[in-house]
Parts: sequence; C-alpha cells; structure tokens
Amino acid sequence: MEMLEVQQLVEQEQFALAAEHLSRLTPDEQAELLENLSDNQAADVFKFMDTAYQEHAVRRLSQRRVLRLVESLDPDDRVRLLEQMPATLARRLLTGISPTERRMTSELLGYPRESAGRYMTPEFLPLAPTQTVRDALAQIREKGRTAETVYVLPVVDDEGHFLGVVHLRELVMSEPDTEVMDLIDPGIEPIPATEDRERAARLIQSTDTLAAPVVDAQGRLLGLVTVDDAMDILDREGEEDLARAGGAEPLNRPYFSVSVLRLAGARVVWLLALAVTAVLTVNVLKVFEETLETVVTLALFIPLLIDTGGNSGAQSATTLVRAMSVGEVEPSDFFRILLREAIVGILLGSMLAAISMIPVWLFAGKKIAYVVALTLVVICGWASAVGAAVPLAARRIGIDPAVASAPFITTLIDATGLIFYFLIARAILF
Amino acid sequence: MEMLEVQQLVEQEQFALAAEHLSRLTPDEQAELLENLSDNQAADVFKFMDTAYQEHAVRRLSQRRVLRLVESLDPDDRVRLLEQMPATLARRLLTGISPTERRMTSELLGYPRESAGRYMTPEFLPLAPTQTVRDALAQIREKGRTAETVYVLPVVDDEGHFLGVVHLRELVMSEPDTEVMDLIDPGIEPIPATEDRERAARLIQSTDTLAAPVVDAQGRLLGLVTVDDAMDILDREGEEDLARAGGAEPLNRPYFSVSVLRLAGARVVWLLALAVTAVLTVNVLKVFEETLETVVTLALFIPLLIDTGGNSGAQSATTLVRAMSVGEVEPSDFFRILLREAIVGILLGSMLAAISMIPVWLFAGKKIAYVVALTLVVICGWASAVGAAVPLAARRIGIDPAVASAPFITTLIDATGLIFYFLIARAILF
Repeated sequence: MEMLEVQQLVEQEQFALAAEHLSRLTPDEQAELLENLSDNQAADVFKFMDTAYQEHAVRRLSQRRVLRLVESLDPDDRVRLLEQMPATLARRLLTGISPTERRMTSELLGYPRESAGRYMTPEFLPLAPTQTVRDALAQIREKGRTAETVYVLPVVDDEGHFLGVVHLRELVMSEPDTEVMDLIDPGIEPIPATEDRERAARLIQSTDTLAAPVVDAQGRLLGLVTVDDAMDILDREGEEDLARAGGAEPLNRPYFSVSVLRLAGARVVWLLALAVTAVLTVNVLKVFEETLETVVTLALFIPLLIDTGGNSGAQSATTLVRAMSVGEVEPSDFFRILLREAIVGILLGSMLAAISMIPVWLFAGKKIAYVVALTLVVICGWASAVGAAVPLAARRIGIDPAVASAPFITTLIDATGLIFYFLIARAILF
Repeated sequence: MEMLEVQQLVEQEQFALAAEHLSRLTPDEQAELLENLSDNQAADVFKFMDTAYQEHAVRRLSQRRVLRLVESLDPDDRVRLLEQMPATLARRLLTGISPTERRMTSELLGYPRESAGRYMTPEFLPLAPTQTVRDALAQIREKGRTAETVYVLPVVDDEGHFLGVVHLRELVMSEPDTEVMDLIDPGIEPIPATEDRERAARLIQSTDTLAAPVVDAQGRLLGLVTVDDAMDILDREGEEDLARAGGAEPLNRPYFSVSVLRLAGARVVWLLALAVTAVLTVNVLKVFEETLETVVTLALFIPLLIDTGGNSGAQSATTLVRAMSVGEVEPSDFFRILLREAIVGILLGSMLAAISMIPVWLFAGKKIAYVVALTLVVICGWASAVGAAVPLAARRIGIDPAVASAPFITTLIDATGLIFYFLIARAILF
C-alpha cells in the first residue's frame, strides 16, 4: 500500500521522495501519516511538501503538531505558507511559535508580494572583514546549523552594512591566516529588498552563484535569496507566462489540489474579456453583411483566414514575451522589432498564399483565390507586427507583457483581419 | 562609450555583468574587445556569455585566442557550444585543445541530446567511504581547483561505483576523525546518464541539493549535474513550452542574435500545419453552405463562437501541459481529468450563454439567441475536454505534450465547433 511505502522512505531518510509520494494520497491520509511520525521526521517531510499540500495538512493536524511543523520551516518557506492561508488562521499560527521565529516571519511579511525581501532567508552567518579564514571556519562550525546556507557568507561592517560575499569554497581552499576581506567575490552586487523577485533569481542564474545578498535602502544586509528559492521563482514565473499564453491565470498549486470552481475562476475573467473583444467581429461582419449575402462563398474562408492571422500573431507575441522576460529586448527596441516581425509575417503569408492559390482556385474560382491569397499576405504581416507591438507596449505602460497572450492577440486581430478581407474582396470582386 | 564600460567592469572583476553588457555590442565589437583582453580576463568573461554570442565570437577571433577560450570552458559548457556549431568547425576546435579536455568533451558528446549525460561535469572530486573528514578536507584543498563543484562530493568504491554524496557543509561542521561514510545524505539517488535532462533538474529542485550524481548502467559514477545547469535546463524547458504554446519552435538563443529568415523558419512548419488543419473549417462550412445562404445572420457569429471555443480549449491545454511537465498529473488520470475539464467548460459556457442571451436577442432575434447560447455551452464543454485530452494523449504516445498548444487546439476545435453550431441552428430554426 502507498502509505506503507511513504513510511519506508521516511525510515530510509529519503524525505524529499517521501513528500512526493505523500502528495498522491488524499489530504486525510496525508494528515494521518504526518500525525503518526515523530516530531523530527514529520518536520523533515513537511519542509519538502508543496505549499498547497502543507496548507491542507495544517487544517487537519492537531494544534501541537501544526505549531511544531510551522516552527520548523525556514522563515521564507513559512511566509510562503502563511500568505496562502486565511488571515485569522495565519495570525493564530504566528502567535503560537517562538518570539524569534515570529519576529523574522513578520519582517519578511512586511515586504511586498513577489519582492526579493519575501524570498530571502534572514538566517545567515555574517563574517567580519578583518576575520581570518581560521576564525571564520571555526565560527561556521559553531553556528552553521542556525543558518540556511553556509555556502555563501556575507561580509558586513560593524553597523551591518554589506561589504561583499565570500564563498565557502574559497575559505576551505585558502591559507588559515588569510583575511576574509581578501576573498570577497567582486562579481556579486547586493539587491534591494523591494526589488522584483525575478531580478534576484536572474542575478543568481547569470552569475552562477548560490545565493544573492539582499539589502535595505541604507545598504545594510537583510538576508540572502538562496539558489533553491531562485529555481522556484523562475519556475513560477514560467508557469505564469505559460498560463497567460493560454489565456488563464496561473494556479500556483498542484492541479488536483484545486477545485473545479477554482479552476473555472482562474479562467473566467480571461474568457469573458476575450468574448467581449470577439463581439467586435460580429460588428465588423454586420457592416459587410450585404457583401456576404451577395457572395456567401466568402464566409467559407473566414475561419481559415482569422485562424492563420491569429496564429501568426500568437507566434510573434510569445517570442517577444519570452525575449523580454529574460531581458534580451527592451521596449526601446520597438521599431526595430516591429520591422523585423512585419517582414517575417509577410514572408510567411506570401508562402501560404502561394501554396493556397491553386486549391482555392479549383474550389471557389480565380477571383476568390486572388482575394484569399492577398488577404493572407496582409493579415500575416499585420498580425505579426501587432503580436509584437502589444507585449512591448504592455511592458512600457507597466503591465505584465504575458497578458498579450495568444488568445488575446488572436481575438484582437480577428476583427481587423476581417476588415482587410472584405475590403480586398470588394476591390477585386465588384 | 559602451566598450569602455565593459572594460571597466572587467577591471573590477565583475565578469558576469561584463558579459551581459558585452551582449549589447555588435558581434565585431564583441570580438575586438575579447581580443584585446588578457587570456585570463577573456576566459572569465567568455564563460558567462550566452552560447549564441560565444559562437559569434569564435567565428571572428584569432585561432590562438579561440583555442584558449574553448579550452577554458567547463566540459559541459564546451559541449553546449560545440553542438551549436557546424561539424567541421567543431572538429577543428576539438583537435586543437589538450588531450584530457578533448577526451572529456568527446565522452559527453556521446550521450543523446537533452540527456543528463550531456549536462554533467566529469570534473568532480571523488571521496573514499573510509576516508576521514580531515583527509577529505585536505584533498579538497589540494585538488579542489580542478573540480567544477566542491559543494557536493560523491563517494565511490574502488571500482568507481557510486555510494552516495556528502555535502561540504557536513564536512566543515563535523569532527575531523569522522568517516566520510557516516556523512552520506541518504536522500539523494543517482540518475542514469541517458535519462532526460529535465528529470535531473527536477531532482535537484525537489531535493534542494546543489548537484545530482549521474551514473552508467553499472552504477559507476560518471559526473555531476550542478544546480546552475539545472536552472538553465528548467529555463530552456520553460522556453520550449512557451514557444509551442504560441505555435512556434523555441529559438534557444537571444532574439536579436537570430536572423529574420531563422525566425520565419521557427514558425513556418507550425503555421503550415495549422493552416492545413484550418482547411477542415472550409469543408465544414461548404457542407452547411445552403443553411448559411438561407440565414446569412448565422455567419456573423462564426468568429465569436470559434474564438470562445478555441480560448476555452487553450486554457485547459496549457493548464495540463504545465501540470504534466512538473509531474502533478499522469496520463493514467485521463478520465478523471476529462470529467473535471468538461464540467469547468460547461460552467464557463453557461455563464457566457446567460450573459449573451439579451444582447443577441436584441441584435438578431430570439431564435438566433437560443442557437448562440446553446452552442456556447456545448462548445465550451467540448473544447475544454478536447484541450485536456490532446496533451494527455500526446504524452502517452511519446510526443511532447506542449505541441498540443493553444493554436493547435483552437484550429482543431474550430471545425468541430462549427458542426455543433449548424446542427443546433438547423434543429432550432427549421
């Protein structure tokens, strides 16, 4: 049985794997199992569980066990759990834990959501610049257990101002009498606590470091964002981009831990907004109703044309959302990008036009074939440019570029695409 | 001037930042700057550059400088660069570097693309199980420079079989006479070299470790995948999912380093495939042409209905692509997921139907309003189920679920949605 397997993994101290298997059980089974483990075992498994499952467990476990588990989490992980819970429950948990842990947690909760401050650990081991390597290693041996990481050690002056970081690797490999000051890595700059979490994560990624120092406005060290948090941040940001590319809000929790109503909730606003935009197409078609009545054949190609335009726009939009999120392009590159994308769209449209010419000719006649081919070129060029322009413009006015998703671009381009189609049809057919 | 700024950053040993600024210069300027730095400085900057820019530089620099730079890379990063280059150039570079480095590089190139073996470093520092902590630390001090990481130290027996890993943190904090054996972390299992790179990255993420051991079929240690590579892997996988969600292949390189033709290339196959699928809609409409001629008003709602269906399908598809990629759902959950998604779709469709009823009634009469409302419910439920089914089915038959992207689902659902629309219209109107 699955519960037995989890217990075995716990015995073998494979806590991460145990937590993964645990997530396949029902919430009640998860709680039962956690309740039956020793305090330490339960804590070791709990810290590897996804926040959503931690929350389910917290609602089911005994008060005593819950407080032990919440207390055992690193402060930044604790914050992640508390921000998912109703305010009253979160407050009750906070008052139950030790004053030191409570103070650290409240401080982190004081920083804006999705800021570097929310993701840092305040449990670091500061070194003094004039300390020797021998001294520093002794200090790590003595107090290392209380720190979340000892691989990146911040160096601070007497007032707590950040001076730089030293890597444990350098300490271990240097002469015992070397001063800590001389081992500082000049490549690592501190990040303000109010900075976006993604910047902290990208800094860790681009400098191949294991933790990024976080400071206040006066340059005093507040904490460290560690590489495991950086991975989770980039993963969340990727989920956000992907969900919005599909026209929905990210769930931020495992699929099966979310109710059907909540699933619908993550989609409803988008679907409504898109439907309202699509009403534009009804009005465009209304304007051209007479043309449509005269040549009903035109209606047959409407889905094909608007799909192709939509796809072309979605392609350039996702390319640019990604390029912006990793910092490859800036809104200031606007016109250069627009030109590139329009050329790509016209290239693709011309190719489609060439391929479609003969089949459409045979199916609906020469004139309709001309109309369809010309519309393909115009629509693809236009859609590609619009698909690039919207995320760039969104970023410039401070909206997440990912809202310029495939569905949004598609719906936006449909109405304008239809106008091109009927104008070209009128010009060629009448 | 920008070039001066890069030089200043190099002087200050801020190599990662220097590499980032460097990427904003033209390829010729980048090469000029790298050529003018000392061998060591150039190597320090080069290793932080994106593979695409490294490739541009390699084509422009003097033979001597190129060999120094390529030789200075970690073997796994070198492989990443070589696999981007034409085979003849890659071979010439390989023959130019030292035999040891060449041998390590060739071994990595022997593993399949996107496998864990391609991303591991063969430069690790193995410990023996009976070694003392004092011994192990002395060994790190002596040979640590040659290893890519000393934070995770693999323990192997005399034949090189993997026994477990020890964290540097544990070594530093333990008594000098402790045996290495006693410090092994039981939570970390090795990964076969032929395993998918994403599994290695997810293992590092879920166990919060800094490196994952990679072994051959006999359980002998081959190398370590380090956390910085894990971050890059997850980032690439995220880019892949996002690009396909937008109906294009990932570029895998910075936006401006890619030519317009290559941009079009990443999109053309998708756009063509989608256009061919969209031909279905033309045929469906052809079947119902008579109905359409009798009631042209029906044509006005075609874009609105197929857009809404497409959006609804895209939402559930991206949700499931994500849920599968992080391992939250399995293809075996097929029917449970289908039911959930159909319910979500019907809920959303009913809501849209209720909202649209009065406006459509006023715009096009009561009967058309009924047709549109009923079609919305059916299309949303259907689209949501199909949107979930396609990525699940794709995974089961071994295709990347991300190909079941928003554009693909949209185009697929359009044709079937139109059938529902006209069948409902015929039943209600005639």
